[in-house]
Amino acid sequence: MPPEAKKKSRVTLLDVARSANVSRATASLVIRKSALVGAETRARVEQVMRDLGYVYNMGAARLRAERSHTVGVIVPNLTNPFFAELLSGIEAIVDSAGMVVLLANSGDQPDRQDMLMRRMREHGVDGVILCPAADTEPDLLVQAFEWQLPVVQALRHISAQTDYAGADYEGGMRQAVDYLASLGHRAIAFAVHGPVHSAYHERVDGFRTAMDARGLAANMIVRVPDATSLIPSAAPLLFEAQHKPTAVICFNDVLALGLSAGLHDMGLKVGQDFSLLGFDDVTDAETMRPRLSSVSTAPVIIGENAGRLLLDRLANPSSPAQRIVTETRLHIRQSCISPL
Amino acid sequence: MPPEAKKKSRVTLLDVARSANVSRATASLVIRKSALVGAETRARVEQVMRDLGYVYNMGAARLRAERSHTVGVIVPNLTNPFFAELLSGIEAIVDSAGMVVLLANSGDQPDRQDMLMRRMREHGVDGVILCPAADTEPDLLVQAFEWQLPVVQALRHISAQTDYAGADYEGGMRQAVDYLASLGHRAIAFAVHGPVHSAYHERVDGFRTAMDARGLAANMIVRVPDATSLIPSAAPLLFEAQHKPTAVICFNDVLALGLSAGLHDMGLKVGQDFSLLGFDDVTDAETMRPRLSSVSTAPVIIGENAGRLLLDRLANPSSPAQRIVTETRLHIRQSCISPL
Repeated sequence: MPPEAKKKSRVTLLDVARSANVSRATASLVIRKSALVGAETRARVEQVMRDLGYVYNMGAARLRAERSHTVGVIVPNLTNPFFAELLSGIEAIVDSAGMVVLLANSGDQPDRQDMLMRRMREHGVDGVILCPAADTEPDLLVQAFEWQLPVVQALRHISAQTDYAGADYEGGMRQAVDYLASLGHRAIAFAVHGPVHSAYHERVDGFRTAMDARGLAANMIVRVPDATSLIPSAAPLLFEAQHKPTAVICFNDVLALGLSAGLHDMGLKVGQDFSLLGFDDVTDAETMRPRLSSVSTAPVIIGENAGRLLLDRLANPSSPAQRIVTETRLHIRQSCISPL
Repeated sequence: MPPEAKKKSRVTLLDVARSANVSRATASLVIRKSALVGAETRARVEQVMRDLGYVYNMGAARLRAERSHTVGVIVPNLTNPFFAELLSGIEAIVDSAGMVVLLANSGDQPDRQDMLMRRMREHGVDGVILCPAADTEPDLLVQAFEWQLPVVQALRHISAQTDYAGADYEGGMRQAVDYLASLGHRAIAFAVHGPVHSAYHERVDGFRTAMDARGLAANMIVRVPDATSLIPSAAPLLFEAQHKPTAVICFNDVLALGLSAGLHDMGLKVGQDFSLLGFDDVTDAETMRPRLSSVSTAPVIIGENAGRLLLDRLANPSSPAQRIVTETRLHIRQSCISPL
């Protein structure tokens, strides 16, 4: 191979970006035909690509798929049973395609997640389903794009230019508020915990919007410790505001389970003296007593959708990014009653 | 390289086994200096190895360790929080060694587990921590040995020739029986579910032995459905025997949680009308109401031990197999009382 040809084949996206005087992220958006890039910028970047002889080999991802038959999945924690249910959905789809899942736990730490992404690339996984750690920089996805490593975002999203499978958290929160309001509750608290990310914002925004729409004050957003073992003793925090709540919506079922124990310790009977509403509707909601009413985010279905998006992406590396947002549905059981 | 030398380097353990007229498993035991092989057989196999020029390259595992810095972990399911706790112990050790964990779920299916082991080998993991699926053939470990892929067994074991980290399930069951007997219980049931494997046998044997030692009948071993959602409705099965139990020991805390709901549905108050004892002592035991008394098998510590065993194995590929069996300890909370 003559030196010139060799040099040409080594032109990177960063070379293109520098010559076109745009960021690497913008250059990658141009390749993905994103509508976020203006026509003039697009024309300039495309011209530079032609001038430098930049080639984006979109067959590579497909070739890799024929090689390892392995999908990487990165989740932020494994103690919430929600993630086991998500994984069973992913596995159902990935298995049926004759592939296997390798799972890794980021601990919601971006540095650790970076290392896992690199390691998964080194191991030659065909693609990654990622629930991005809180505070993940979108640059991670640009990096994966340059590696030609397909990524699907699950549950949380940091970029509209990358496939995403999630649930309509805002709609779920609206159903929760509407249900409690219909029972007569006016003072409704929202108990939150865990790191802040897109799904967190969507739940909090959903709560605020739904309370506002009904003329109710959305000022009782109560932060509870993250550690599962500390949740029960945090139940009194719910009653520190001037107006005592008669019902609480929980950020997820893990929180509902813990607060249920804490309310019991305070002498309050859930479903009789106080209303408790979960979110996610994991299997535990059905085995709690009283059975927990909870907004189903259908983690198994989100997992299936994420699996399908990744298979689609492997088959069509250059198609536009897709979003599949599953409907949420309130599952009414026994834990809420009209206020006393 | 002359053809003869090339041929020599290709001699496999199977070639050795055939020439020595032993099984491949026996040949591998000879290499691992197992006491299970008689002196005569050992001498014959070693002579064949010399004759054929078989070389076991024990440095290869170490070389691989320098390459990928990745540990594979294969567990049979992820819905039991026990496995998340085990994993956090493994990660603590593996992380501190600058390595990462890739996790896979065998679904307790040996075929699927075989495929995962092959895939992990292809991906070049440095070693595997395996909780063997029920009905795993010991041949899987012989295969891994031939691949020079270090394996540590966790929680369950299928071979004494491979490292193992577990807990003293029999001792835990003895503590459970002794505690309930000390409260005055004579009719004690043991509720079991899930697949049959070494840890299952050890728990059942432990129950039988402990009951026998106290002159109590160990005939109330009640099989409950595996699916978590079906456990509550199985609670009446506990009372089908001629002598009604006044207490039940549960195979694990998942079962205890489900039966607690089922007993509630039958109008029985745990810790007042009936005694319920868990096994594993996962975080949920503390957040149940009444708090669940449970035998701690310390999954985090088992995970740490498994991680350490694997690091030891990578550093010393040819040292004899080690077993670390953690003590179990009854954690008394609120779910058991003297019989009425």
